Order: sequence, then structure tokens, then C-alpha cells
Amino acid sequence: MPTDTNHIKLEEFYKRSNVKLGDLVMIETDKGTHEGILIPRYEYADAYHLVLKLKSGYNIGIDLGKIKSIKKISEKLDPVYKPDLFTKYKDYFSQKNSDRDFPQGKLPHLSLLSTGGTISSKIDYRTGGVMAALTAKELNDSIPELKGIADIDTDEVLNEYSENIKPEHWSLIAKKVASKILSGKYDGIIVSHGTDTMHYTSAALSFALQNLPIPIVIVGAQRSSDRPSSDASLNLIGACNFATKSKFSGVFVAMHNSISDDIIACHIGTRVRKNHTSRRDAFHSIDVSPFSLIKKDQVEISKQYVDLIIQERHNNVESMIVKPDFENKVSLLKFYPGFDCSMIDYCIELGHKAIILEGTGLGHVNKECFSKIQNAVNEGILIFMTSQCIWGRTALTVYDTGRDLLKLGVIPLSNTTSETALVKAMWCLGNFTEKKEVIKTMTSNIANEFTNRLVVE
Amino acid sequence: MPTDTNHIKLEEFYKRSNVKLGDLVMIETDKGTHEGILIPRYEYADAYHLVLKLKSGYNIGIDLGKIKSIKKISEKLDPVYKPDLFTKYKDYFSQKNSDRDFPQGKLPHLSLLSTGGTISSKIDYRTGGVMAALTAKELNDSIPELKGIADIDTDEVLNEYSENIKPEHWSLIAKKVASKILSGKYDGIIVSHGTDTMHYTSAALSFALQNLPIPIVIVGAQRSSDRPSSDASLNLIGACNFATKSKFSGVFVAMHNSISDDIIACHIGTRVRKNHTSRRDAFHSIDVSPFSLIKKDQVEISKQYVDLIIQERHNNVESMIVKPDFENKVSLLKFYPGFDCSMIDYCIELGHKAIILEGTGLGHVNKECFSKIQNAVNEGILIFMTSQCIWGRTALTVYDTGRDLLKLGVIPLSNTTSETALVKAMWCLGNFTEKKEVIKTMTSNIANEFTNRLVVE
Repeated sequence: MPTDTNHIKLEEFYKRSNVKLGDLVMIETDKGTHEGILIPRYEYADAYHLVLKLKSGYNIGIDLGKIKSIKKISEKLDPVYKPDLFTKYKDYFSQKNSDRDFPQGKLPHLSLLSTGGTISSKIDYRTGGVMAALTAKELNDSIPELKGIADIDTDEVLNEYSENIKPEHWSLIAKKVASKILSGKYDGIIVSHGTDTMHYTSAALSFALQNLPIPIVIVGAQRSSDRPSSDASLNLIGACNFATKSKFSGVFVAMHNSISDDIIACHIGTRVRKNHTSRRDAFHSIDVSPFSLIKKDQVEISKQYVDLIIQERHNNVESMIVKPDFENKVSLLKFYPGFDCSMIDYCIELGHKAIILEGTGLGHVNKECFSKIQNAVNEGILIFMTSQCIWGRTALTVYDTGRDLLKLGVIPLSNTTSETALVKAMWCLGNFTEKKEVIKTMTSNIANEFTNRLVVE
Repeated sequence: MPTDTNHIKLEEFYKRSNVKLGDLVMIETDKGTHEGILIPRYEYADAYHLVLKLKSGYNIGIDLGKIKSIKKISEKLDPVYKPDLFTKYKDYFSQKNSDRDFPQGKLPHLSLLSTGGTISSKIDYRTGGVMAALTAKELNDSIPELKGIADIDTDEVLNEYSENIKPEHWSLIAKKVASKILSGKYDGIIVSHGTDTMHYTSAALSFALQNLPIPIVIVGAQRSSDRPSSDASLNLIGACNFATKSKFSGVFVAMHNSISDDIIACHIGTRVRKNHTSRRDAFHSIDVSPFSLIKKDQVEISKQYVDLIIQERHNNVESMIVKPDFENKVSLLKFYPGFDCSMIDYCIELGHKAIILEGTGLGHVNKECFSKIQNAVNEGILIFMTSQCIWGRTALTVYDTGRDLLKLGVIPLSNTTSETALVKAMWCLGNFTEKKEVIKTMTSNIANEFTNRLVVE
């Protein structure tokens, strides 16, 4: 038990009390006892307070001088764990065939478009919360390293947290990106974006802009740019390195590959998902490897790319396909035990044109949904099936349930993620009037939303 | 290019053609060319056909004698990949403190209850599909190893694929399990179950049956029990070993820990999720390690268990808490860009008592939902927030959006998974009439649906 805690600093206090960050502790003060985990103090806190994360999720600051006793309940352990869901990628990446030819001594040109989100935000020191603040220009100016990579023009498209991004915003961003590309001035486009729905937007741009002459790299941050712990600058530097140095085009998402500040992963726009609420390596490629790893200024490409639809850069900006429209009238319904299948009726009532059913396992819903699905199909509504498992493929031929669903007209989408399936259905219905064409497009591989590789048992 | 392909067997054909399972190939026959991946042939196919998985997802069989040429397009690569989302668990498990005292030379007693699912099913060789068929007794009889582990009584509770399991089935299973426990005859209860919604049922039992004197282990299979490749027997053996040898009680799920047939992971009932449509290691503990790994007959316990609510076995069956009721009128709504927030109105119309919003990132929905949420709250509907990210915690104090949602009365559920949150809300509303009590219970840790550890950045 520590005594004389006045006027000693946090580090010394921890040492004396034989505790460390991450430990679960019980602290007694004159106001009562508090159980929680020792977490790093905020940047703006002084060195005479510790911060305790309570069970409720709230953090409290405690004046060291007020602490009567501190008792360790349990040591810090690795906080999270998951078995190797996927094969590790030893020797999976290579720099061979990656770099483009670019005249030496000349800086490439990039366009940086901001849309809002944490990457464009600052801490509000009054509330301790985060607020949208930075423009693309301010963001660019705040990271001096970028000046060594490219000449960057900046432009603001939106200023929204990404939970507020809607299909009409995707159209807006797609048109802005297309106009930058058509100017012929740029070697790549960087779009800064909130992380919450970044993977929906990356899927949207993957369908809206095809046969791209140059890469579009979407980038975000899990911590606001003005914090020393921010991942913004490394993500942006990685995105700019990929956009200038790689010889490939397409739509990508660049974010941390792990929690250490060394490698940025560049994911294919239709295959990426935010899988963690707060970690900097929250984004993962689903069912494939990331397309590229960026280690400092070195760009390595996955050997798996030979199986994917990845294009090289080209100069023919006019051949770019721009189909920026999205239809809002599409729903995504996650199925679960006790699911009220009249939700399907309600989608009919709303005049929705397609429903993505996020089924269980291989793509199943219960028997009670069958008649509702039949009604919807009879009304001309397209019903697509994905899986809430995240990884792996739907397969409606294995079990009775699946075969019944196929007979009802449900269209399985293999290993298209639910999020990409939703965006693609919105895009198909926004651009094609013939139902046949919508179905054909939904079941064809446009931008790696289907991958060819079998997920081996 | 192979010649004289008549009368040679598949293996020899592969060897001559310099291809192997998993390779992407182009095959020319007199009927045309086919591009696809070589996959293992079905058990009932002969040795003179190969099976090709086409881009469309369909499999075709090709008579080796009809093949004019076969060309390798690309080699098999590791089909799936994911970076280390979680810290690996080196030295994470220990057998210390695991084993119970049990009289030597005496076999423990188990009750095996079947509810249907793949583990209880057979291949229908006519359709190539899988159909429900096995009773608990047949399942038990089909695995001779079980007789060396325990005396097993069998009983059939249901025969349903798990996509058809509903909250009333959870009640039925809970009551049956409770009656077996109250008989005082058993050292553990094994429940065989379809994998699709096994994690929903394991959460349901975790709330419905508390202060358990003995362990309940739910077990399933990703391949039907009559297939040589089935994971059923190893999963069952693992489940029985855990249920007889460990000194802990509670509700668990036992499934393969990896794709190799060596280690079974035993997950905590409220923290487990099916994360892959088809792999045998589809089930993962979220935000924590599995509770136990079973290596042959050796049961190792995670060192993390000191942070969890895990009880030891006890003999006081009467002190078991049985609250088997569930309220159906709860919805889970996954939010996405373009989400029609009148879905919330529709839940009010349906008379639902609670809504789980599966928000983006830290637990966000767009501004347009705010007034709908306000209406629902005014109508007395409870709105809880989880995250579609799967891993990590909700946190509504970081951004404006979250703070606004808190002000509206939205209740964040930290790192309770969406699936467990749904089940828990159904359970709370099925057992408590006072709204205050429902809220208090939803935000209290009953069965490790909240974990104490901070997810460190």
C-alpha cells in the first residue's frame, strides 16, 4: 500500500504500488472505493492524476494525493485473443511487379478530397469529445512528410461523420473523383473519410467508377489527427505511397495492418470490413489477403492478386466508366431467432426493390419467412442472400432450407459481404432498369465482390 | 497436356497434368472449355471424374476420358488470410486448477440431449444434400470413444435445423436441461445443436439457467456425422471430456479450435460467435480467449478466467436459478447507409418492447434516426446499442453522435455482442415486468456478456 502519495508523479506512484497500466485494481479514497483498469491518462491531464476505467465503461480521474490504498486484483493480460481464423501470410507479399515507371526527380500529383470523419477532426478540450474541424488543406499541411511524396491539391467534398454518409453522398463523391480523374492532372486520388462506413463507400466507388486509369485510395483514422497517438498521418502517408508508387489502379482502403505503427494494409474496396470498434487495425480484408502492404515507402503486392480483377494504370481517362447513381429503396435485414418476418412485408409496403437477407450460416432463414419471401418475389422484389458469419460463402444447395429458398427465387451472393451486397444492389437498381440485367450484374463479378478461390475446409 | 486419359485414375491424372487440388485451371473438352478450381470429388463419385468449382460457384464433374487438355492458370494459394486481429495466446492456457476430484475407476454420468442440426444429420445420397436423421441415441452409439469417457443417457428434445430454433425452443431446452440437472444424476449436460444459431441458444441458456451446479456444453458439427470428414465425433468427445473432467460449471460451446483435428475450444456461452459459413473452426470467442482448450483428454483453462464470472461445480442443485421465459417482441436492426429509419416506427407499430440497434463503429446511427428513436423512447420502448464491428466496445461519449444518442435515452451495451444482446433483452423482458429492472439487468454483467478488460489500442 502506498503512503505519502502527495507530490509524487504517476510513474513513481505506479512503481511504488507495484501496479502498471492495464492492471485491474481496487482503489480506496476518502470518497469510497473504485474498481477498474488503469488506463493511460489523457494528454491534457496532469501527472498527479491516474485514470481508471470503471466496469460501467466510464473513465474517472483520481488525484494521487487522495488515494488511501491501491490493491491489484489481477495483472494485465493480452486483452483480446482470436485463434488464427486465416492462414498467416508468410512470404505472401512481394515487391516484384509492383512499382510503376515514373520519371525520377519529378514529384507525382495527387488530389486529396476530404469528406469528414475522425481523420478530419480535433479533440474538443472542453468536452473531451471529438469534433469535425479539419479541411483537406489543413490535413495536408499538418503532415509535412506528404510534401516529399507528391504535389497534393486539396478539395473539400463533404464534412460529415461517416454514419451520416448516405447513397446520395456516394454519388457526389464519385462525381467529384471522376472530375478530378478526367482533368488528367493526377497520378492518384486520396479520399479521407470517417471509418464507420468507409467500407460501404469504398464498395460504392468500386462499382460507380470502373476501368479506372489511376488508383483511388480511401483513408481514415481511428484517433483524431491532432492527438499524438493518432494513426492519421501514417495512414495518409501509406495511402499516398501506394497511390504514387504502385502500378495498379482500382479502389482501395488504406489503414494500419496491426496495432504497431509500421505497416499499412491496402485493401480491395469491395472486400474490406471494419471489424473492431476502436483498434487502429480495425479494417480487414474478408476471405482474401490485403492487396498490398506498405512498409515505409516500399509497396508490396499480394501474390493472390493474380486471382483478382486488378487493373494496371492506363492513360485513357476517357475509357473510365462512370455510373454514379444509387437507388435508396433497398433494405438489409439481419435474420435471427425470433425475427419478425413481417419485416419483409414492411419492405414491400415501403416500395423497396430489393432486400438483402443476412442469413445464418450458409445463408438460411426460418421456415416462417418462406411465405413472406414468396410474397415479396411475387411483387417483383429481388431477394438476395448473404451470411452474417462474415467469412465464407453462402451455399443454398447443401440443406433443405437452402434448396427451398432457391426454389422461392432467393439469389445467393456467394462470398460477397453483406455490406458490399447492399451497396451493389443499390448501385444496380440505380443504373439498370431491366430486372434481368440487375440479376445478371448482381451475380457477376464486377470488382472482386466474388472471389474465385474456394475456402478450403 | 495429358494424353490417353482413359482408364487412368484421378490421382495419376493430376500428377501427369502437373496440377493439384486447389489450382485454378482451364479444361478443354469436346463440349467446350471450363475455367475453375479443382476441388475434392464427392465421396460417392468414382475415381474417373474430377470436380471443378466454376466462377459461378457451381461445381461440375468432368469425365477424365473426355478431357482434351488441362492448363494451370494459377497455383493453389492459402485461400484465406486475416492479419492477427488478436494477440496470440502463447502460454495462455494451463491445466493447473482445471481438473476436478472424481473417484477413480468410476465413470461419470452425462446426459446427451439432441435438438437437431448437422451433427444429427446424414447425407442424402440421392440429392447430395443433407437431411436431419440421427437421434441422440444413434449419435452416441456412432462414436464408440464416448463409452470410455462417461455413461451417457440420451434424450431427444427437438429435431430442427437451428435456423428454425425460436425463443420458445430456448425455453423448452432450458426446462429439459433443468429437469436433468434437478435429477441430481449427472456430472454434465451435453446439448447437440445446429451451428447456425448455436451461439444464440448458448446465450439463452446462460441467462435462463444460473448458478449451475454442473457444466452444460453445447456442441455441433459443420459436416454431417456420417461423412468421413465430419467434425462431429471430435467435437462431441471434446465436449464430454470438458463436461466430465473440468471443475467448472456454466454454459459453454465446444467446437474445433483450428481446421486440424487436434484441439477443441470451449467458449463461454455469451461470448461466442459463428464467424465462418463452413470451416470447422467457425466459432470464435469475441474479445476474450476461449475458456478452455481440450487436447485429447487433457483440459486446459485460460488464464483469463480470473477476470470472468466462472463458477465451480457444486452439489446444491436446488440453488440453481431457472428463469426459462423469453419475450419475442424484441427486434435487432442493423444500421447502414440508406437505412430507412421508419423501420423503427414499424417496430413501435408491432408493439415491440425493445430494439437492439446494431450501429456502426463505436455505436452510431445517422441523424435521421434521432427523431424516430425519440418516438420509440417516448412510447416506452427500450433502445440498446451494439456494434456491427463484432469486436470491441460501443462508446457513446466520444463523438457528438454518441452523446446525442445518450441524451435520447439510447443505452449502450459495451462489448456485449449483438446476438447476445438480443437474447438477453428477450430474456429480461420475459422475466422482469419492471422497466427499471430490465434496464438494470441489461447493463449488469450476468454471464460474461460484458468483459472487464479494456481493449488496448
